[in-house]
Amino acid sequence: MHAHTSMPLAPHALPASSNDATASEPLYRQLAAHYRRAIRNGVLRPGERMPSMRAFMQRHGVSLATATESYRVLEREALIEAQPRAGYFVRASQNAALPAASEPDLATMPRAAQFVGIHSVISTIVSQYQRYPDAFNLGGATASPDLYPTDALQKAALRALRRRPTLLTTAGPDQGDPALRAIIARRALDAGIQVGADDIIMTHGGIEAVNLALRAVTQPGDTVAVESPCFFGLLQALESLGLRALEIPASPSTGLAIEALDFALQTHPDIKAVVAVPNLQNPLGSVMPDAHKARLVELCARAGIALIEDDPYRELVDSAQPLRSLKAWDSDGTVIHCTSFNKTLAPGMRIGWINGGRWHPRIGMLKFAQSRHNEQLSQVVLAEFLQTNAYERHLRRLRDRLRMQRERMAAALGASFPEGTRFTPPAGGIFFWIELPREVSSADFFDAALKEGIRVMPGTVFSNAGRFDHFIRLSCPSTDLDLADDALRRLGRLATAMTARASAYASAADKHTPRSHCETP
Amino acid sequence: MHAHTSMPLAPHALPASSNDATASEPLYRQLAAHYRRAIRNGVLRPGERMPSMRAFMQRHGVSLATATESYRVLEREALIEAQPRAGYFVRASQNAALPAASEPDLATMPRAAQFVGIHSVISTIVSQYQRYPDAFNLGGATASPDLYPTDALQKAALRALRRRPTLLTTAGPDQGDPALRAIIARRALDAGIQVGADDIIMTHGGIEAVNLALRAVTQPGDTVAVESPCFFGLLQALESLGLRALEIPASPSTGLAIEALDFALQTHPDIKAVVAVPNLQNPLGSVMPDAHKARLVELCARAGIALIEDDPYRELVDSAQPLRSLKAWDSDGTVIHCTSFNKTLAPGMRIGWINGGRWHPRIGMLKFAQSRHNEQLSQVVLAEFLQTNAYERHLRRLRDRLRMQRERMAAALGASFPEGTRFTPPAGGIFFWIELPREVSSADFFDAALKEGIRVMPGTVFSNAGRFDHFIRLSCPSTDLDLADDALRRLGRLATAMTARASAYASAADKHTPRSHCETP
Repeated sequence: MHAHTSMPLAPHALPASSNDATASEPLYRQLAAHYRRAIRNGVLRPGERMPSMRAFMQRHGVSLATATESYRVLEREALIEAQPRAGYFVRASQNAALPAASEPDLATMPRAAQFVGIHSVISTIVSQYQRYPDAFNLGGATASPDLYPTDALQKAALRALRRRPTLLTTAGPDQGDPALRAIIARRALDAGIQVGADDIIMTHGGIEAVNLALRAVTQPGDTVAVESPCFFGLLQALESLGLRALEIPASPSTGLAIEALDFALQTHPDIKAVVAVPNLQNPLGSVMPDAHKARLVELCARAGIALIEDDPYRELVDSAQPLRSLKAWDSDGTVIHCTSFNKTLAPGMRIGWINGGRWHPRIGMLKFAQSRHNEQLSQVVLAEFLQTNAYERHLRRLRDRLRMQRERMAAALGASFPEGTRFTPPAGGIFFWIELPREVSSADFFDAALKEGIRVMPGTVFSNAGRFDHFIRLSCPSTDLDLADDALRRLGRLATAMTARASAYASAADKHTPRSHCETP
Repeated sequence: MHAHTSMPLAPHALPASSNDATASEPLYRQLAAHYRRAIRNGVLRPGERMPSMRAFMQRHGVSLATATESYRVLEREALIEAQPRAGYFVRASQNAALPAASEPDLATMPRAAQFVGIHSVISTIVSQYQRYPDAFNLGGATASPDLYPTDALQKAALRALRRRPTLLTTAGPDQGDPALRAIIARRALDAGIQVGADDIIMTHGGIEAVNLALRAVTQPGDTVAVESPCFFGLLQALESLGLRALEIPASPSTGLAIEALDFALQTHPDIKAVVAVPNLQNPLGSVMPDAHKARLVELCARAGIALIEDDPYRELVDSAQPLRSLKAWDSDGTVIHCTSFNKTLAPGMRIGWINGGRWHPRIGMLKFAQSRHNEQLSQVVLAEFLQTNAYERHLRRLRDRLRMQRERMAAALGASFPEGTRFTPPAGGIFFWIELPREVSSADFFDAALKEGIRVMPGTVFSNAGRFDHFIRLSCPSTDLDLADDALRRLGRLATAMTARASAYASAADKHTPRSHCETP
């Protein structure tokens, strides 16, 4: 019995003397050819992990040099790629890659608007979802539940309860558990953030943090600059606080368009704050380059307004170097840093935190007045989890799994979606922001997909200015990737049919109009 | 060995042939005399439970008729009193009872005011507290931690985690756990409230519920009528939302003065909402009579404004009949009902709930936009706890213990505090609202008490109009009642000394002023 049943190819399927190469070829080429065929046949799929060097050597009875050379051949052919500290992975087929999404038009800037009714739009979507409870979920905002460390957190919670039986019956400190805040302060160094435990207030998820930040720096009626597209939860928060959103274009690859913001700040003196998601923006998946981050902080500092940074996805990036938060460039308290563990660790634990920059005391007051301290239990569980290397281990695994899912999804998209579809692969995270052919309305697509048993998120909810009607956001699905492939194939067929129908209709109309031999009665 | 070491008097100390009565006296009189002496000597203290009928019969070898007669004698002498379903308890000494607190002056109504700085006042108090971390706490807002069912909740949490391991890693429903909401809806019938599970939204404690209610029905700058005194958390919420508080006098025995509110509604057309704590008001401990409750709901309905009911103490009342909430009289959605399990069950679980009356959908929107759903784990624990009779058992025990504490405190207050102190014993709950002699400033008293190692809450924080400077709020302390007695004795000495000093000063000034033989240089 071979213990590693999850290995992509069992040893007996891969004799070293593979018959697709002459025996005169060097061994490393024979092995490369074997894996090349496995990849092209779909036996090894995009995103799957290749055997480790050690496993490769053992399996084929070859030296490290031979193993390394084999992988170099495949790497040069763009069939596999190395991921730092994680090994080699099968790449998505380059043939099937979609063209990059179009860059935003910086010349047209919508007027500041208060989206009256975003909540009813979202409510409608939610109630539609509820009509199809068994639909395959590509519309969510967290990774699949099985990607989160359920067992480890459960054990940590059991330990915490046994060790501190009074957690449920004793009120906690206003700012949150001190031990947790100390650990978070240490970890924040990774993001380039220098804060002490006392500069941190624990919040009910990242969304409470963003709400507190907005309340601290605005009054109802004020204007807030946001990215366009931006996640609808922010538009809901703005609407519920009576604030107006001014949408600043954002690029699918580099996020918020700095020059557009600069222009907006000069022409809209009533902007009181900017809200930005610098790392793996929702829905774009974009990451702002460091130079943009520095410039954004500088612009806000010069304008004397708050820069509210919402940064819950930072640790989901595919990169050897950790990304830095906007707060890393903050020298005068301009940046209010908000984040959570909701996306990276546990969607069931409502734990976020905030550093309020120069508004920190006011935010502390608002938090206390609004909801008092967070529950102690989950904070203690989180502190225990962060203290060991369990969180880092989990993150590495989560990033690997998400990358594999994204590769598979990208391949399926490329294979199934019609011409005219555009898409910039995100630098990590959970979301795919897909530009459908102009003919396809995302509202129609949403309805049709749901009838097919698939949840997607229509582009219209990511703007308060009626933009993005031919966009959809898909999120990484459950780990059953075959089901996901199937769902994406069906979505692709749907988009293709809708595009063809629209073209046929347009063409019929074209033919029809000039002749006009058939009046409407 | 006698198993019941906590029995107030061991059998051997209480021979039936007690020598303080002639043998010719009936047995029930001999036994009554024995207990009378034990109470007068302080062997049995105010608030302590008398032996049960069964224990009494066994201990003294007497019939039920004799036991009953003995207790009737003591009851007629006002030495003990019966509590429904709980047995007999030693009453506080009537000699030492303080005069009732003065009723509010309904003729003078402060102007609506926005308390700018309530948070800094509270912050100062908190940082003062932190300078004396070991101080005896009579300033808190929950019962002593050992009065909450730590073990049972811990066990329920362990069970919940084992049964539903994904609680921490799966997001919950927006309104809160459906099973919990169904149980709460059933339990609400006790308060006279008819709601379904879907009419309930779980919140982060009662304070989030009150904040959501205020946000739903007001805009910054609006006026809200509140009780005077009212708990400072409400003043903080009002201030943080930019609202103005109009203080309506409240009686120490019957709460909000309905006629004063009626007058205010007629003269202040800008009042957008009324916030009231109908049952065991904080700090008064008052309970509104049912007729007042009905009239209050009617007044608000007629004025077309929201009545925000904050009702977290209802279940702590000493009464055989459960108290009804204001919501019980609501026929048109005027009442927004807010409550929590923070005071009755578990100060560490931030669980409250709200029914928003006719503003319910808007409150649902605000809750989602502000903080999403509550954490699942504590909701499941609570549901499990409420499903059995564990909660009822706990409440009975909590009420007994609190009553005993209050009796002891009332006795110690009566024995130690100076003439001029007034106090209306509350109908249940945690708080004592004490009117000190006019000469004593509560700010000075707060400082002096803290230096004595005792935390009290000064009256000034219960008003935004500078009232109640000679009031303090004390809360039921830890269950070490001897320590509490000692603390109250020291507070009494302090108040006596401050009163005497002020009198001496006034008298010296009196002597001094008319002569004016000593000019200031």
